[in-house]
Amino acid sequence: METTKNNDLKNNGLNNDLNNDLLGVCYYPEHWSVEKWLADVKIMKDLGLEWVRIGEFAWSRLERKRNDFNIKWLREILDLFHEKNMKVIFGTPTATPPKWLIDQHPDILSVDQWGQVRQFGSRRHYCFSSLRYREEVKRLLSFLLKEIGSHPAIKMWQTDNEYGCHDTTLSYSSDAKKGFRKWLKEKYREIHRLNEAWGNVFWSMEYHDFDEIELPNLTVTEANPAHQLDFQRFSSDQVISFNKIQVDLIREHQSEAKITHNFMGFSFDFNHFKICKDLSLASWDSYPLGYLQNFVEDAKHKKKYLRKGEPDFQAFYHDLYRNLNGDFAIMEHQPGAVNWAKYNLSPTGKTLRLWVWEALAHGASFVNFFRFRQVPFGQEQMHEGLLFSNNEPNKSYHVVQEVAAEIKKVNLAKREHLAEVGIVFDYESHWIWKIQPQGENLNYFDLLFSWYQALRKKGINVDFIHPDFSNYRDHKLLIVSGLTRIDPRGLEVLNELACPVIIGPRTGNKTENFQIPPNLLLEELQSLLGIRIQGVETLPPEEEVSILREENAAFTRWREFIKVSEPETPNVPEASAVKISLKTFDDYPAFVEKGRFGYLAGIPNAALLEKILLKYLEKSNLTPLPLPDGVRLVKDKERSYFTNYGNKTQNLRHLLGSAKILLGSEEVSESEITIVETI
Amino acid sequence: METTKNNDLKNNGLNNDLNNDLLGVCYYPEHWSVEKWLADVKIMKDLGLEWVRIGEFAWSRLERKRNDFNIKWLREILDLFHEKNMKVIFGTPTATPPKWLIDQHPDILSVDQWGQVRQFGSRRHYCFSSLRYREEVKRLLSFLLKEIGSHPAIKMWQTDNEYGCHDTTLSYSSDAKKGFRKWLKEKYREIHRLNEAWGNVFWSMEYHDFDEIELPNLTVTEANPAHQLDFQRFSSDQVISFNKIQVDLIREHQSEAKITHNFMGFSFDFNHFKICKDLSLASWDSYPLGYLQNFVEDAKHKKKYLRKGEPDFQAFYHDLYRNLNGDFAIMEHQPGAVNWAKYNLSPTGKTLRLWVWEALAHGASFVNFFRFRQVPFGQEQMHEGLLFSNNEPNKSYHVVQEVAAEIKKVNLAKREHLAEVGIVFDYESHWIWKIQPQGENLNYFDLLFSWYQALRKKGINVDFIHPDFSNYRDHKLLIVSGLTRIDPRGLEVLNELACPVIIGPRTGNKTENFQIPPNLLLEELQSLLGIRIQGVETLPPEEEVSILREENAAFTRWREFIKVSEPETPNVPEASAVKISLKTFDDYPAFVEKGRFGYLAGIPNAALLEKILLKYLEKSNLTPLPLPDGVRLVKDKERSYFTNYGNKTQNLRHLLGSAKILLGSEEVSESEITIVETI
Amino acid sequence: METTKNNDLKNNGLNNDLNNDLLGVCYYPEHWSVEKWLADVKIMKDLGLEWVRIGEFAWSRLERKRNDFNIKWLREILDLFHEKNMKVIFGTPTATPPKWLIDQHPDILSVDQWGQVRQFGSRRHYCFSSLRYREEVKRLLSFLLKEIGSHPAIKMWQTDNEYGCHDTTLSYSSDAKKGFRKWLKEKYREIHRLNEAWGNVFWSMEYHDFDEIELPNLTVTEANPAHQLDFQRFSSDQVISFNKIQVDLIREHQSEAKITHNFMGFSFDFNHFKICKDLSLASWDSYPLGYLQNFVEDAKHKKKYLRKGEPDFQAFYHDLYRNLNGDFAIMEHQPGAVNWAKYNLSPTGKTLRLWVWEALAHGASFVNFFRFRQVPFGQEQMHEGLLFSNNEPNKSYHVVQEVAAEIKKVNLAKREHLAEVGIVFDYESHWIWKIQPQGENLNYFDLLFSWYQALRKKGINVDFIHPDFSNYRDHKLLIVSGLTRIDPRGLEVLNELACPVIIGPRTGNKTENFQIPPNLLLEELQSLLGIRIQGVETLPPEEEVSILREENAAFTRWREFIKVSEPETPNVPEASAVKISLKTFDDYPAFVEKGRFGYLAGIPNAALLEKILLKYLEKSNLTPLPLPDGVRLVKDKERSYFTNYGNKTQNLRHLLGSAKILLGSEEVSESEITIVETI
Repeated sequence: METTKNNDLKNNGLNNDLNNDLLGVCYYPEHWSVEKWLADVKIMKDLGLEWVRIGEFAWSRLERKRNDFNIKWLREILDLFHEKNMKVIFGTPTATPPKWLIDQHPDILSVDQWGQVRQFGSRRHYCFSSLRYREEVKRLLSFLLKEIGSHPAIKMWQTDNEYGCHDTTLSYSSDAKKGFRKWLKEKYREIHRLNEAWGNVFWSMEYHDFDEIELPNLTVTEANPAHQLDFQRFSSDQVISFNKIQVDLIREHQSEAKITHNFMGFSFDFNHFKICKDLSLASWDSYPLGYLQNFVEDAKHKKKYLRKGEPDFQAFYHDLYRNLNGDFAIMEHQPGAVNWAKYNLSPTGKTLRLWVWEALAHGASFVNFFRFRQVPFGQEQMHEGLLFSNNEPNKSYHVVQEVAAEIKKVNLAKREHLAEVGIVFDYESHWIWKIQPQGENLNYFDLLFSWYQALRKKGINVDFIHPDFSNYRDHKLLIVSGLTRIDPRGLEVLNELACPVIIGPRTGNKTENFQIPPNLLLEELQSLLGIRIQGVETLPPEEEVSILREENAAFTRWREFIKVSEPETPNVPEASAVKISLKTFDDYPAFVEKGRFGYLAGIPNAALLEKILLKYLEKSNLTPLPLPDGVRLVKDKERSYFTNYGNKTQNLRHLLGSAKILLGSEEVSESEITIVETI
Repeated sequence: METTKNNDLKNNGLNNDLNNDLLGVCYYPEHWSVEKWLADVKIMKDLGLEWVRIGEFAWSRLERKRNDFNIKWLREILDLFHEKNMKVIFGTPTATPPKWLIDQHPDILSVDQWGQVRQFGSRRHYCFSSLRYREEVKRLLSFLLKEIGSHPAIKMWQTDNEYGCHDTTLSYSSDAKKGFRKWLKEKYREIHRLNEAWGNVFWSMEYHDFDEIELPNLTVTEANPAHQLDFQRFSSDQVISFNKIQVDLIREHQSEAKITHNFMGFSFDFNHFKICKDLSLASWDSYPLGYLQNFVEDAKHKKKYLRKGEPDFQAFYHDLYRNLNGDFAIMEHQPGAVNWAKYNLSPTGKTLRLWVWEALAHGASFVNFFRFRQVPFGQEQMHEGLLFSNNEPNKSYHVVQEVAAEIKKVNLAKREHLAEVGIVFDYESHWIWKIQPQGENLNYFDLLFSWYQALRKKGINVDFIHPDFSNYRDHKLLIVSGLTRIDPRGLEVLNELACPVIIGPRTGNKTENFQIPPNLLLEELQSLLGIRIQGVETLPPEEEVSILREENAAFTRWREFIKVSEPETPNVPEASAVKISLKTFDDYPAFVEKGRFGYLAGIPNAALLEKILLKYLEKSNLTPLPLPDGVRLVKDKERSYFTNYGNKTQNLRHLLGSAKILLGSEEVSESEITIVETI
Repeated sequence: METTKNNDLKNNGLNNDLNNDLLGVCYYPEHWSVEKWLADVKIMKDLGLEWVRIGEFAWSRLERKRNDFNIKWLREILDLFHEKNMKVIFGTPTATPPKWLIDQHPDILSVDQWGQVRQFGSRRHYCFSSLRYREEVKRLLSFLLKEIGSHPAIKMWQTDNEYGCHDTTLSYSSDAKKGFRKWLKEKYREIHRLNEAWGNVFWSMEYHDFDEIELPNLTVTEANPAHQLDFQRFSSDQVISFNKIQVDLIREHQSEAKITHNFMGFSFDFNHFKICKDLSLASWDSYPLGYLQNFVEDAKHKKKYLRKGEPDFQAFYHDLYRNLNGDFAIMEHQPGAVNWAKYNLSPTGKTLRLWVWEALAHGASFVNFFRFRQVPFGQEQMHEGLLFSNNEPNKSYHVVQEVAAEIKKVNLAKREHLAEVGIVFDYESHWIWKIQPQGENLNYFDLLFSWYQALRKKGINVDFIHPDFSNYRDHKLLIVSGLTRIDPRGLEVLNELACPVIIGPRTGNKTENFQIPPNLLLEELQSLLGIRIQGVETLPPEEEVSILREENAAFTRWREFIKVSEPETPNVPEASAVKISLKTFDDYPAFVEKGRFGYLAGIPNAALLEKILLKYLEKSNLTPLPLPDGVRLVKDKERSYFTNYGNKTQNLRHLLGSAKILLGSEEVSESEITIVETI
């Protein structure tokens, strides 16, 4: 059970009641002269930073040329941290193989979907499928483990850095092709099974041998979706096996090693659930203003949160990544303006403090700021740090000072997250949506985020549930939406559990092999829900399918034509009866209920989602809270955290009741937080 | 004379008075287990489908590996159809050469304009210029003809499938380069003639040998337009000669064989007039909702017809393709939602019935639905059929059932199309517009469609006239617009015929070799019209050139500065006098008339087009009908068909007079049709 | 001193008081039959055209195949011009190497940033770094110099044609890579110096040898900005050294030869200041309507000037290029509609005359129209000339006739430009902005143009100042904005000069090596201005940073967080005191003043720019003039030229006072000009 693992981890020192090790920083000793190191470590320690991540881009300094290692400087800085009793996270420097290595083995480079080799000169230029590179990684990491693997300062390992960043999960190299063929052979064993699984008779795409199979790029029109899905799975598996090489080597050296990887937001190209089976905990890199700029499309909404970030993006990923395997941390956190977003703004006032508390409220083991000091050169020179390059403190330095001090004043013991609702999240479903959206504006994340945000605006905590439902516990309501490919185990759980479930749309409408099940819906779901699906349509932005007799409620982007497959027996509320609760303007069932289950036959607009949600919250005995505009609430077993992302001060009296205030006050102003004993 | 051919064809059984063979379907026996075949054939027959197209993507099943043929299954299904007396159209499977063939001869693959080889994995991956592929096609087709060429079920052949689909007419392969050089050598014989024709002295582009000539892609800035035009012509000719290989083989086997190819809408890359010289009839694939989504830009207009299709697109192509060589059919018709448009909607109610009648009203020999049953795998798995993949009937099944029944009740003898107006259509002019639009929003199709739509909204039937005017008969009005390159024979006909003609803009302003004629206008046209052109300008969307004293009338996108080249003699209406009927706000002639001819010196906006059109309809003794919004009318010699694409029921009393109603009623509701004896 | 050179040049006959040689034309004898030449020359001469440029695309006619030269025709046409006493500018035909040469040496071709070879078939297909091509250029030019270098008709040479057109400055060829490595080796000598300068320790980008360095394209994410900047500098230097080969050969032949190159508008990829050290004068190709279409984004503004051109674009480049090395000419001028803009309109009435006068008012030595006669073939067949291809005069012909006549009536002696304000312009700063804009809407040109336009709307003349300030003379006000990399010599001049200076934003915030200086600002600037910079942010279009107590004033796109680094002493106006004159809404200094200097901490919107400018004009004793909408004023030492780009007639009485009118009248109507004795 994941939560057990969580507890273990917390007992192992990753999260303790003294609040002593909740903050940290990313540091690059190789960027600075040795003379600065001692003073830097002192500044960190004095600021209350206990974690420090180093190493992840330093290959060219650790191994100047092949086997010309220089490990002395690394030992020195590790010693300095150890003297101060700081905890080092050592990032393996495999995201940036140096030029001498690329020149010796140019086949390490990855290839983009247009067939272009992705050249040396920035980062992440290697191909996950390069067997040569895997050997080189083993060689380097073995050496590092031998030399510094037992250094007492190192409390955690980070493998590589931001897998998949810059669209690097998929590579179309010759090694990838070889690897894919091998992967397919292992999966299907005989070519006729692959031909059947993929439906290759269509358009004469049949193969006689696995070695005939190409990568699914550069085709005249779209490649077979099953071909694409298997290539996406293969590519995801390559990330996982590449990562496992590092994990295995580290664990070989030290079986109890804590190992993590720093994930990103809006990164869905590889299966995070699967890779986390090999990791001790998840961590992620949180850049609220960057994500707002690059991923929010609604201009009005974007303007409102320009210097605070989208109020629910960070929470979404905190909740998702906490649920990967039970614990999570922030490995990099935006300190001020960054360099890589469309526009790079500076956070309002003490918004950084708000972000830190949001992460801690969601159960983050620690929050590392990226980065200690702004480096005056290279691609990220305009990315701020806690210090300017001349050592003067940036605004964020002072905010961190404040938050570090106040953290110690609040009792943060037992930050066990309290989630009442579960939303099933599935990377494969994301891939299926991406491969065949069936409409230009369709996106799996958007659909799930709309449910997440609606819940959070009502003060309801959420867990993300694995596609096999293995981490479903005692949630009072379950949302299963857009889960195109549903796991057989998931179907069993659905049958067994007792809580209300909102299902659909686009759930269970593909088989494992990207084929349509009969009636466009899996058999098991049909009997569970008492419906059949008879066609779908996708809607352009200017068109909605309105719901009969429900003002403003409508389907948007995607709707299904369903019929109830069993006789409807109105006014007879027995568990097995199918009831059409809502209809579309053109008289198709829009929301159908059978016992605990409700099936939604389209993507709901805000009004429809609200209506369904309120009904099912009530059914689940959950009470939505009237949170003021911009205010959000997170609860753990001991505390409730109110955060204000809005532009106005809000009074929380009606929400707090007599709860004891632990931090802040009844009036929560812009970018402020109020923590009370749990309400 | 094309109409003779037409009649021959109809006598040969492609169109008869019993209405027994007006519907059909596309079927892929290779997608389904043999056990289903018998039942499937029975369903088709019972539904009233007499035509069935098979075979066109089945190469991998017909020839497993080189010379490892399997023809048995094909014979079986042909026999089944023959037993039911159904008529098979056999599509040659050459659009999808299988992987074993590509692996043996990778030079078969085409190359895109960026120099990238277009890989195996979808369809249409071959290069029309590959001599190797032509040999392989001959080899396969010879075998098929020998084996099943005389099978009594086969009543028609379809060559390949949708030439040009996915931008495949132009290929930049090494074979294409060789072929182009040869083609040029045959055309120009001596290199100095090519240099002169292309004007290669410009920018030192002169060649000394045909083998120096490259394909016109990847140049620093645009390639010479004459170079581009010849490459477009060559590429069109390659499609035609590729097609002719198949036609010749089939005719060698059976000299009377009916042969067609299934064209597409919005496909202008090769010359359909020219290819139809080799075919028995044209056919095309009609997808009203897909075309609306992908080709209508006006958002309001698009929303209005979201689930019915643009009211005039289908009619446009029916009329265009009927005029290719006198007869046409619908080889594929959208049955419900498809998978490939930007958004994929489901047709409103019985709109499918409306579409079928629209096609028949325009003279279609038959209408085939694509496809019999939705296939649950492959790229088109979300493309609906008449049946769902589990054999349940889709909405379209029931509509087809209804339309099949009612067709038999209406006397459809002598569906000879009655077109009062001719619009000249020219593929070369389309290419010239595309190669040098001179303004970002200029498009030949848009201009012609605006005339077509205005006429159709007035209940006027249209024929499209070949660029050599060879199928001009007794049309009462001729529209010659945007015909940049005018055929010498066309000029003669213009001189000889007696009906009023609206000419211009952009007509006759290029020579055969993409050069500007003196005064930007061909000599012959100058004397015919009494004008000279002295410059043109193109207008951004925000600018129009208003017409003096004509409210709302204006030129848009393109205007010409013309002057009358002969003395104007007002108030003296003799045939040779030139009269400036309209002027622009800045005092240039906007519409000039001389005898039967009117010359329009710019692209008219809706108000100006309306004005000119009404005047010339009157001049031609044609009476525009006051059709209600959304209603259209098609007439053949015996019947008038009123179709309602609008959202409201419309009363037709004022239009019908005492005409006898053959189908429907005086009130025509949404998506309905009313057929009366010709009015 | 540049002005000396300027005077020399004018004395040498490029600009004289007889106004006899102010107009010219571009002519392509090779496009026309020999029979036409004599008449053509006569037409030119009669029209008042004294200059004629020929030759620049004629390689294929001058050297048919290697060493198969044909120089006879060239001598003939030169003789014809000489007989008429016309002055020939001979353009070296190196922009269009012919096909036979490319086939012999395909390595001459350039390579685009995606690694694609840019093929023969248009123009500018050579790579500046091709050593082979440089040899070929020398070979051809040596021959031409020997044959016609001393022909008395030739009064000026133009090297090549429009360097950089079609994005050709940067080439990613193998020769470019070799050349870049050599260039780096010469610059840094030792690899560790390059590693330090570029900060290659970041992301393990360190090199051990110059031969390891790749070109900065095709990287996974952005390449190191210092790497990009050096490649941009190298590429600029390649243009300069390529040009110098031609200059040296010509000067070797004739040491006093006048040599120019025809620059373009919106062309910043190579350093025009640097290349002009090798040229006698600058010239440029002015296409007002084309530039308006392609470079104005504000739709309302664009519509207003659709057929007149942006009122300040041409002036901007006249002023910039006049300041390159003291004299300039218009080598090509738009005569009517062109072919290459998004939309190609025809100029209103006699706007061409307005443009000619605008150029002359700014000091142009001559204005050449492009082109004599519209050529009916090739890529530019829709580009108008003074004559149509059939020799009929175009509208522009008559306008030129008029302007040629009136020029002779106005005393144009001593057209010495009178600029009161200097704006520093720096190509390297442009590159830095482009390489790391830090916000999607940031553009160096836009910022400088906003200052330029504001000044011009007030009737203030501007000089553009070199980045080393070497052509600063007696300007009364200096604008130093966006000068990210400030030259050490520039800093000295800033210290020494006596006039008020408006500095910032984004000035001095990068070192020579694209690194951030301490405090994001160069030390010297810090002490000069008394400020420190602590962070920047960039703003999306929907967000501004308003200025406290100044209605409508705001920063847009870019703002800096600054603090005064020295104690502020309000009310004590001593020179060294720092004063915060304006603050932002969030209480940061917005405009800080210290003595003569004002520092602006962001990009000003129109209202803020106006406010600062008016204050500093007053401080500089400059009086802004109340010019009517659309009216502009240019002054030289003897005359004031009022031009009206607006749509209404404007009365200038209040501006003219008692000044004597030399041309036009007090009322200046649309597209008209009024010249008076200097006001």
